[in-house]
Amino acid sequence: MKLLSFRKDGREMFGAVVGNGVVDLTDWRVDVHTLADYIACGGYLDAARHVEGREIVATLGEIEYLPVIPRAEKIVCAVRNYLDHHQEALAAGLNRELSEFPPIFLRVWRSQVAHAQPIVKPRCSDTLDWEGELAVIIGTSGRDISEADAWDHVAGYSVYNDASVREWQFHAKQIASGKNFESTGAFGPWMVTADEIAPGRTLTLQTRLNGEVVQSSDTGHMIFSVPQLIAYASTIFTLVPGDVIVTGTPAGVGFGRKPPQYMKVGDVVEVEIESIGTLRNQVVAQD
Amino acid sequence: MKLLSFRKDGREMFGAVVGNGVVDLTDWRVDVHTLADYIACGGYLDAARHVEGREIVATLGEIEYLPVIPRAEKIVCAVRNYLDHHQEALAAGLNRELSEFPPIFLRVWRSQVAHAQPIVKPRCSDTLDWEGELAVIIGTSGRDISEADAWDHVAGYSVYNDASVREWQFHAKQIASGKNFESTGAFGPWMVTADEIAPGRTLTLQTRLNGEVVQSSDTGHMIFSVPQLIAYASTIFTLVPGDVIVTGTPAGVGFGRKPPQYMKVGDVVEVEIESIGTLRNQVVAQD
Repeated sequence: MKLLSFRKDGREMFGAVVGNGVVDLTDWRVDVHTLADYIACGGYLDAARHVEGREIVATLGEIEYLPVIPRAEKIVCAVRNYLDHHQEALAAGLNRELSEFPPIFLRVWRSQVAHAQPIVKPRCSDTLDWEGELAVIIGTSGRDISEADAWDHVAGYSVYNDASVREWQFHAKQIASGKNFESTGAFGPWMVTADEIAPGRTLTLQTRLNGEVVQSSDTGHMIFSVPQLIAYASTIFTLVPGDVIVTGTPAGVGFGRKPPQYMKVGDVVEVEIESIGTLRNQVVAQD
Repeated sequence: MKLLSFRKDGREMFGAVVGNGVVDLTDWRVDVHTLADYIACGGYLDAARHVEGREIVATLGEIEYLPVIPRAEKIVCAVRNYLDHHQEALAAGLNRELSEFPPIFLRVWRSQVAHAQPIVKPRCSDTLDWEGELAVIIGTSGRDISEADAWDHVAGYSVYNDASVREWQFHAKQIASGKNFESTGAFGPWMVTADEIAPGRTLTLQTRLNGEVVQSSDTGHMIFSVPQLIAYASTIFTLVPGDVIVTGTPAGVGFGRKPPQYMKVGDVVEVEIESIGTLRNQVVAQD
């Protein structure tokens, strides 16, 4: 099933994609208000049954998409997690070493933006870069989750554009600032529940800028696997339903090009991952 | 006024400290449930009047403290922001440079712990270190806040122990992991509203480990001032009421000692800041 968060008639809702339509699940149970709630109560495991007999409330073209998990408690992002991207970063002059442990940083939910909503290029920099990535949505809570158990904690998968303001990522040698600009981290259009994608299956990933393919790789190039990322993150804190693990980007980002290329106002950026879907955003200027 | 979050009879509440007692403000207004809500509606500006005629519901000794803002949307922390701490880090062999911009990282609220609650030493490392810091609580929303306007966005001040797992801070060259272990970032016991502390006033800060003074400095040694930190952070994202800016630690942390000294199970760590109060925590083992 494809599950999503959206707004309709001013109301924040969640539901399932059926064909080209959206089935509303917001009132499925009185204490379940958001997709994160629905995941937390295990509803997503039985979503196909829950949509039966419910009417389609809108077409996909009629809704305002929201980030899949609009106010995720934690957004844990891997950095330099594709070998091909690591090599291009070295070639671009970055002094990076591979480490024994997964390098991670955090995004705040306010840095997120939905499918079909604008990515906002901040006024302070012209170095807004794309990073197409696989996002993993946590289904069940856990601390100190073993790699062997990690897949059991996954509710589903989505597409992320971990758009990054490169100057700010590097100017104080702390990655968080360049990775958290408001309305830069695109997340959507939906999550595909884990039952549809076998654990560890290699998925192709492609990023297109104004139709030109700029990233073309697959999730098989990850340095730290999804179970390794989950095990590492859950050593630090309890992962909870709706937490998001963003798994890193492959080669082909703008700062690795010669000369570097960044996103401009009006650009359209798409990230497509096999068996999940295509996340599409246009770049607008910060007003 | 001193405002705080606490739990009593199993219920999460907020209120004000009056003498040795706590006045409950939780039901002050029907749409105000948390201290962050109370800040957001401007209630904190008039707290002295709101406590008038209300009874003391408990003594400070009877409540279970909660982190001042239990589920802060954003916890923005400065790193290497005291010149004396920068010098000890260099002496300890860290390859750090001062930068033109404030280096920041993010904590998740789940990494926090309240006054008088245990700081949890994780199983995976014996390098849990203390960092006494001034915390600033945001009162009014803003993006691209100028330094000149920054003080107007401050609701109050509190004490933070930005306890850090040093191995994890350094082992993958990404600070976030070592700074986000569950129940390590102590925050409390309360916030003192901004009207009680003149903008930019220098406050003494002392950290004691089992009664021994390990950090003794004052906020005048900050490299980037509170207005500079607010201006920088608000360039990235909208700051909202209840957001927390943790302003960095002075010299005297454990990893700067020769030999390095870390917190052990049973240790009692206190951070005292002039005109605010003393944050006290005992270290326990992760169960």
